[in-house]
Amino acid sequence: MLVLGVDPGLTRCGIGVVEAQGLKMRFVGMHVLSTSPSQKQEERLLRLYEGLRGEISGFRPDIVSIEKVFAQKNTNTVLGTAQVAGLAMLVAAQNSLPTAMHTPTEVKLAVTGNGMAKKVQIQRMVARFLSLPSLPSPFDGADALAQAICHILHPEDSSVFGLMDTGKSEAQKKWIEASEKFKAAKNKMRGRGM
Amino acid sequence: MLVLGVDPGLTRCGIGVVEAQGLKMRFVGMHVLSTSPSQKQEERLLRLYEGLRGEISGFRPDIVSIEKVFAQKNTNTVLGTAQVAGLAMLVAAQNSLPTAMHTPTEVKLAVTGNGMAKKVQIQRMVARFLSLPSLPSPFDGADALAQAICHILHPEDSSVFGLMDTGKSEAQKKWIEASEKFKAAKNKMRGRGM
Repeated sequence: MLVLGVDPGLTRCGIGVVEAQGLKMRFVGMHVLSTSPSQKQEERLLRLYEGLRGEISGFRPDIVSIEKVFAQKNTNTVLGTAQVAGLAMLVAAQNSLPTAMHTPTEVKLAVTGNGMAKKVQIQRMVARFLSLPSLPSPFDGADALAQAICHILHPEDSSVFGLMDTGKSEAQKKWIEASEKFKAAKNKMRGRGM
Repeated sequence: MLVLGVDPGLTRCGIGVVEAQGLKMRFVGMHVLSTSPSQKQEERLLRLYEGLRGEISGFRPDIVSIEKVFAQKNTNTVLGTAQVAGLAMLVAAQNSLPTAMHTPTEVKLAVTGNGMAKKVQIQRMVARFLSLPSLPSPFDGADALAQAICHILHPEDSSVFGLMDTGKSEAQKKWIEASEKFKAAKNKMRGRGM
């Protein structure tokens, strides 16, 4: 299974591609698409759309896993990020590919065991999972690889096929259980406007 | 000048097209693109993207004016709306068309004189501006026409060419002044997290 992870962003949009045979993973590629804040919003979106089309038709993944966007304090940023995530969904649909979405917290929890992990921890664990000779950089690329790795380890949130939904190991089951609890706690926090 | 207004939404996306000769306006068309909440998000975005491409290549407007999205209480809705607004921007850029954005409050203020106007007031004023024989319906279509009318009356917020930026009447200047004050008050409210 070839998973193309997307860390959406207007200024930098990370693309990370990982091949998985069961839970065994191999690094395939990492790119960062970038646009300048001095460009018009519509030109930035067009550039990113064309970039995503190129990446997805170039790598021909089986699934596109995209960071799930939530409202944060910086609303302008989150709306732009949501638009880029929407473009990734659009391009997946244009290529008849399924999509999955994992939140940043799920990704951090999946790759580092800590939902509040720092960027460098994610880079280190991505390098370890994929046997990279150095830390993947910039962060946006590392985050996109982490998104793909998260989907391979933890595909249950997939909006699609329930890919790999069978044959979980005991460790995976425990992880899923812990993750569910974490999500419940997170939802509770969100309910209180945090 | 032919203005294509967009009231973005995942379930219903309004398109309203108005031709303007100075401040004289003529109704050209109104459509509502719709998708079902039972469809996958990426399929909804693809359907709306194709719909917007069809509308924009069919009407060949000079400018695309899109409702500016702000964070509201219902975050899921606002992120979907932002994604559809992003698609409208993308399609405009693909057609080398300028875009403008006006907030719902600016639109209400421009067409009814009241930034808190109810839906039916907007319908009535749109019918009056465009000499329609009955109220435009559904609301999403009326709102898209109102977006176009707002841009014709008040193009200053255009992110683009400063279209019609010269030759304002005294009434328009007063209106702009009042509108600036309103925006300043609104920004102040937003700064307090309202």
